[in-house]
Amino acid sequence: MYKSEQLANSIKQLIENGSLKANEKLPSLRDQVNRSGLSLMTVLNAYQELESQGLIYSVEKSGYFVAELFSPLSLSSTHNPTVSLNAKIEINSLVFNYLKSIQPSEIVPLGSAFPNHELLNPPKLIQIMGQLTRNKKNFEQNINLPPGNFELRKLIAQRYGMQGIPTQPDDIVITSGCLDALNLSLQALTKAGDYILLQETIFYGAWQIAERLGLKVVTIPEHPQEGFDIEAFEQAIQTYPIKVCWFMLNCHNPIGFTVSEKIKFQIAKLLHEHQIYLIEDDVYEELFYRGTKPLSMKYFDQQNLVLHCSSFSKTLGSTFRIGWVYAGKFSEHIQHLQLMSTISANTLMQNALVEFISNHHYEKHLRVLRRNLEKNKRIFFEYFKKNLPTGCEIHNYAGGYFLWLTLPSHISSMTLYEHLIQQNIGVAPSQLFNVQQAQKNHLRINCSFSWTIEIEMAVKQLIANISD
Amino acid sequence: MYKSEQLANSIKQLIENGSLKANEKLPSLRDQVNRSGLSLMTVLNAYQELESQGLIYSVEKSGYFVAELFSPLSLSSTHNPTVSLNAKIEINSLVFNYLKSIQPSEIVPLGSAFPNHELLNPPKLIQIMGQLTRNKKNFEQNINLPPGNFELRKLIAQRYGMQGIPTQPDDIVITSGCLDALNLSLQALTKAGDYILLQETIFYGAWQIAERLGLKVVTIPEHPQEGFDIEAFEQAIQTYPIKVCWFMLNCHNPIGFTVSEKIKFQIAKLLHEHQIYLIEDDVYEELFYRGTKPLSMKYFDQQNLVLHCSSFSKTLGSTFRIGWVYAGKFSEHIQHLQLMSTISANTLMQNALVEFISNHHYEKHLRVLRRNLEKNKRIFFEYFKKNLPTGCEIHNYAGGYFLWLTLPSHISSMTLYEHLIQQNIGVAPSQLFNVQQAQKNHLRINCSFSWTIEIEMAVKQLIANISD
Repeated sequence: MYKSEQLANSIKQLIENGSLKANEKLPSLRDQVNRSGLSLMTVLNAYQELESQGLIYSVEKSGYFVAELFSPLSLSSTHNPTVSLNAKIEINSLVFNYLKSIQPSEIVPLGSAFPNHELLNPPKLIQIMGQLTRNKKNFEQNINLPPGNFELRKLIAQRYGMQGIPTQPDDIVITSGCLDALNLSLQALTKAGDYILLQETIFYGAWQIAERLGLKVVTIPEHPQEGFDIEAFEQAIQTYPIKVCWFMLNCHNPIGFTVSEKIKFQIAKLLHEHQIYLIEDDVYEELFYRGTKPLSMKYFDQQNLVLHCSSFSKTLGSTFRIGWVYAGKFSEHIQHLQLMSTISANTLMQNALVEFISNHHYEKHLRVLRRNLEKNKRIFFEYFKKNLPTGCEIHNYAGGYFLWLTLPSHISSMTLYEHLIQQNIGVAPSQLFNVQQAQKNHLRINCSFSWTIEIEMAVKQLIANISD
Repeated sequence: MYKSEQLANSIKQLIENGSLKANEKLPSLRDQVNRSGLSLMTVLNAYQELESQGLIYSVEKSGYFVAELFSPLSLSSTHNPTVSLNAKIEINSLVFNYLKSIQPSEIVPLGSAFPNHELLNPPKLIQIMGQLTRNKKNFEQNINLPPGNFELRKLIAQRYGMQGIPTQPDDIVITSGCLDALNLSLQALTKAGDYILLQETIFYGAWQIAERLGLKVVTIPEHPQEGFDIEAFEQAIQTYPIKVCWFMLNCHNPIGFTVSEKIKFQIAKLLHEHQIYLIEDDVYEELFYRGTKPLSMKYFDQQNLVLHCSSFSKTLGSTFRIGWVYAGKFSEHIQHLQLMSTISANTLMQNALVEFISNHHYEKHLRVLRRNLEKNKRIFFEYFKKNLPTGCEIHNYAGGYFLWLTLPSHISSMTLYEHLIQQNIGVAPSQLFNVQQAQKNHLRINCSFSWTIEIEMAVKQLIANISD
């Protein structure tokens, strides 16, 4: 045992000091035995230890290879799928400082994650809120204990049903926003030290929560055409003992793609074969512009492996902070976790949503919202297309309200953000969405705003800064 | 090493099978060496291992003693302070099922933790809410990122200042209720495996959160006269490497006592000497009836060791779900944790509270609320005093809205609760507040309600069930 540890440590040093390069093949077991004079069992133990630490990976019939800790996103260049284990996660302070910096009202909110408020908070919903608050009785109700307001859960269940996903109200747990749903789901499914799989470019909340829970994070890069790289996914789950995946597949934040049904079906098949759970962040599911609402992974899930999380914050407004998780058999576990944190999402807000949705106002509102988001984003896109300097690329997809810009590789989007915030313009640099910091030259632009003089001036200034 | 483990295991068995009784002195190290033929080092290692497992404790100059795993609350009988390490925590399902059982509107809410809604939600606050919701602009504000609404933090800081506790708005973090504040504070201060110290009888949320975070929980019993047992506290922190305490010292839930300033001063002194943090659950601080508001531990805290948690839920209503923590130098850490869970407490509710408090409505409301709670509780107390069978005791203190009843020792309050819930009457059995289940014959009764026929009938039925 001692000898195998010693061998593992010395190989680890070679990897860490760069003597062994990423994807370099290690000596075969037999070679290593001959070379070192150690027993086969000792060498095998050492290799397995290194594999469990994510420092090397095995390929069937080929042997062991050095794992790559940093893998560049290559949405537009040649594509080499690489699976990465991330040694250390530290993104919390970065995100925190970023969010504080774009908060003041004088900052043009091109870096915001929330859609233009003016398109949300429909008058009918405000009217319902007004009516509810006029009656003291509505304040005197019992708190909505977990799993939350029954009528609201029934309405949410019906909406799943309309997409061919059979759902009972008791499958749903109401939460204080989508992030709360995602956080509770990950807590329910994991314990410290477990392996989880993330997309390489993802909403920063996933990184923060994984860091907090002490999870080992493996990432797969985006596929340049399909958005989701099924080959890298298969490689990842064969290499690491992944317990839970956390994916966003519809109107992906920050990039914008929506993954095809064919690939979703393949993902589901692999999840089932390997009995891996999926936490699906689907907070933009209602903001797809073309045809019907895209299917969620829940649709393809026959074995209750998918916990589907969403909310009303991106469609009705952040004042509501009401989200939910399709928790299925994990409902009770998640409710237990709620009983030690928030206890309950806001009761009054849940009541207002019940009245709004049950009177068919939600569908009407969503139609108008999608039309306006699409219209506003198109204006941004045309302007960028016309005015961005050569060497830039615009990733424009039919959904959501973000454009993802690839800048010339010599530009650091973090430096650009720091310059722009001095000029009262907020933009979201790629470093927020990619903890490995491999992507340094992308920007997420919030295009949900009307094309006012102020917005045009800010976009012009942004482009001037890129061109400098 | 082997020998000491073997010795530790055999002593452990003697403790577990009852051969060694609680508080029995173990053979001295020297005796054990002579008796066993083992070396002094082996015996010492074995004793230290047992101590670290909480199975035995050491007393300076006296030796080692068997720890007591179950220590009865003796509020009214002879008092033997005993410190306990709790081997396993499992209260979550019990609490969960209890809360669900008392939720239906047909259950008479004598078991509720919330005060009578009719005394909360003052008309002026409802009016402010109505005004805010009439204006769409109030829904279009940016979400209140952590640490929350500045004006509200300023008002809360001023209230601390009025009690002689110098406070800046940046010391305060707004949360989604007090439990959220407590949970975030404990997360910020601990990691799995740390020792925390709780009062033996305490709000069940503390147990649930400790369980979730994988903490080792040591408890100290209540003092029959003082409420808080300073001697047991000193013993506990000398015996175990306590990192954080979590205490409720004002209008204690469920018992009701308020600890004297003299004892609070002594607690602060010991915290400072041992550099131990205190999370103070002070959610009932405004509901003390006699004289001025009792001082919090924050008043005695010179070194920023106290994180003081409170909320508006028990004074203004559970619809608001706005709490806070006086986090001081831990503010940023707690904000980071918020950014991965709820992100923000409700923005609209925070705005409403700002207007309500800054226009001096809160103090007026609190005066009326205290008067009504005191009045209602007195009627309950008089009725119980007159009608409870002999062998019962009523613990009645000047604050809050709970009475704590001690029933004859042959009565299990859990069984009583189960009978009563069948008759649509909710009461809170002692088992909810004492994970060691040592206290089996107490009830917490919510006395915030007006003395209606329905309430009188329910109390009569409760007493009949006790007398049976």
